[in-house]
Amino acid sequence: KKPSFLRGVSSFVHKKLGKHMQKIIHSIKVGIALVLVSLLYLLDPLFEQVGENAMWAIMTVVVVFEFFAGATLSKGLLRGLGTILGGGLGCLAAILADDFGKIGNAVVVGVSVFIFGAVATYCRLIPSIKKKYDYGFMIFILTFSLVAVSGLRADKILKLARERLSTIGMGFAVCIFTSLLVFPMWASDELHRLTSSKFDKLACCIEDCMKVYFSVLNEKETMPSINVSGCKSLLHSKSSDESLANFAKWEPWHGRFGFFYPWGKYIELGEVIRELASIILSMQKCLESPMQPSRSIQHAIKEPCKSVGLLLGLTMRELGQSITNMKRCQAKVLMVPKLQSAKLDLILLSTSPKLRGLPNVDSLAIANFL
Amino acid sequence: KKPSFLRGVSSFVHKKLGKHMQKIIHSIKVGIALVLVSLLYLLDPLFEQVGENAMWAIMTVVVVFEFFAGATLSKGLLRGLGTILGGGLGCLAAILADDFGKIGNAVVVGVSVFIFGAVATYCRLIPSIKKKYDYGFMIFILTFSLVAVSGLRADKILKLARERLSTIGMGFAVCIFTSLLVFPMWASDELHRLTSSKFDKLACCIEDCMKVYFSVLNEKETMPSINVSGCKSLLHSKSSDESLANFAKWEPWHGRFGFFYPWGKYIELGEVIRELASIILSMQKCLESPMQPSRSIQHAIKEPCKSVGLLLGLTMRELGQSITNMKRCQAKVLMVPKLQSAKLDLILLSTSPKLRGLPNVDSLAIANFL
Repeated sequence: KKPSFLRGVSSFVHKKLGKHMQKIIHSIKVGIALVLVSLLYLLDPLFEQVGENAMWAIMTVVVVFEFFAGATLSKGLLRGLGTILGGGLGCLAAILADDFGKIGNAVVVGVSVFIFGAVATYCRLIPSIKKKYDYGFMIFILTFSLVAVSGLRADKILKLARERLSTIGMGFAVCIFTSLLVFPMWASDELHRLTSSKFDKLACCIEDCMKVYFSVLNEKETMPSINVSGCKSLLHSKSSDESLANFAKWEPWHGRFGFFYPWGKYIELGEVIRELASIILSMQKCLESPMQPSRSIQHAIKEPCKSVGLLLGLTMRELGQSITNMKRCQAKVLMVPKLQSAKLDLILLSTSPKLRGLPNVDSLAIANFL
Repeated sequence: KKPSFLRGVSSFVHKKLGKHMQKIIHSIKVGIALVLVSLLYLLDPLFEQVGENAMWAIMTVVVVFEFFAGATLSKGLLRGLGTILGGGLGCLAAILADDFGKIGNAVVVGVSVFIFGAVATYCRLIPSIKKKYDYGFMIFILTFSLVAVSGLRADKILKLARERLSTIGMGFAVCIFTSLLVFPMWASDELHRLTSSKFDKLACCIEDCMKVYFSVLNEKETMPSINVSGCKSLLHSKSSDESLANFAKWEPWHGRFGFFYPWGKYIELGEVIRELASIILSMQKCLESPMQPSRSIQHAIKEPCKSVGLLLGLTMRELGQSITNMKRCQAKVLMVPKLQSAKLDLILLSTSPKLRGLPNVDSLAIANFL
């Protein structure tokens, strides 16, 4: 475990200096990793050990080092796996081809490169594989082709493979060291933070809808537009959520997450939140539409609607807060009875003659969510 | 220009066999490119020319060959540019460092690797650069580090650089040949097709809303749910549209696009279509909400609403068709007057006493789009 001083600094950096500082730290980390791996070339005793293969260590660092620790880990592991599998099969193909004559050899190698290359490329295009293992398949094709083809020329193919793998391993070790141990950027923390901030955005939108809609006092005034940019940005969050969850799955135990990985739940939550955001957006469209009930009706529904809006906003903030603090949400006990009674009020109101409050319909839908 | 026979086969393949066949063709193309580039190893006269550097040709093919022609082109060009820039600066750094002593040399190289690595990594994190030039910057870092660091060891660095660049060029040439000349998959065609199909999806949703809503005849019947999956999928189309347009910009003149690249317009259209889709979705939410006007009101608004729905659907299909055929849309002349009069009908209807037709509001919003 890290000493608490380091953890304090790290959390300070995360919170106060934000995204920009994180980017600078990441850049410096990459620079350090590159220098560390360059030592394989720069220091004579090390260079005598690895020789020209040091190239592969540099390549590994440049290609594998990603912003999030989970992304670095997954790329590194996939690279290792792809290299081993591709190298192994490539060796087999080269040895198999060796039994044929000079021309037969070339034909067998060519055919096997074609078949493995085409099949692995087809696999890369399957969506579920593309999402998670794309990089591993690419490295598999690369290593297989290189090994199978150069097997013809390199006599000491096993020695070459061992050396190359060990330098790739060194590069990976440097990546892991700088990525996971020095100011790590966890994709899981980012997903956690994003999920709880989404509830705040929902709360802001609901409250803004209520505030703006009921701020208009007479018929002549035009309503100021409702700020729903927060909700709109939520609608596009699907792909970034999924890639974060994908990286988070690779990340080891850290912080307060323990062994109970909630990533699948976060994805489901994101889905529900997007559904809610689209409901709020359609409520906003209804509120901003040119056809509105008369002022007297608006006045009659003002108080109950506003109180429901406030209550919903409060509930959303409560939910977001409980995710931030990783504590069981008290909203179920405290808020649900209030929301139920508010819902009853609205139903009574809406069945009373001549009252058809548009916003209520949607507020009810939101209330039903709980 | 391609002979019309080939073009016929290509368009047949695109239309009839669809996505699956395209993937198989792509896989076979990658296999062929790999075999072609393996010939550098397999054929003795070629191998004598390039030697071990043939490795870089294979690497280039595996890494650069992408599904869409534009993606392959952009990756290849960025790789070339990154290699040249990185190699040039790396050479300079190595030569500069040569003037210092043994230890000073290592220090200068280490510092320059750190600075260039960190700065280029920071650039990669800037969103606008990340979207378009990420790969180029990665190759720049890779080549710079490799050249600067191995400059210490390799005496004939310029010869090495020339050989490596020429094999990378060979790999790129093979990629371009198989990607652009044999059954090319144009990102621009895909974007074109997707954009026109979006209008069809909108039309289907509008028509389905009208059909389902007015299919319920008496109070007891529950309304079947409206199928809006088409509209929902449109909401998430932003990122895929943008990457397609990004690739399309790299693609050379082909088909009927000529020199007037409409990609920016397609992105704008996509934005408007997503706006429309969210309006339709909020209309669907209103239609499916438990609070509905009485049957008599529904009956009164049925005919005008249905006719507006049909007209809108027809207009959408017309627009989509005109994009497919790349002809000026007749809708402006033919449809707009009809829509205007239908809009007037709806306004008259909605101001008539006691009629507050929810769907109209949204239909009006759609009508206003034209």
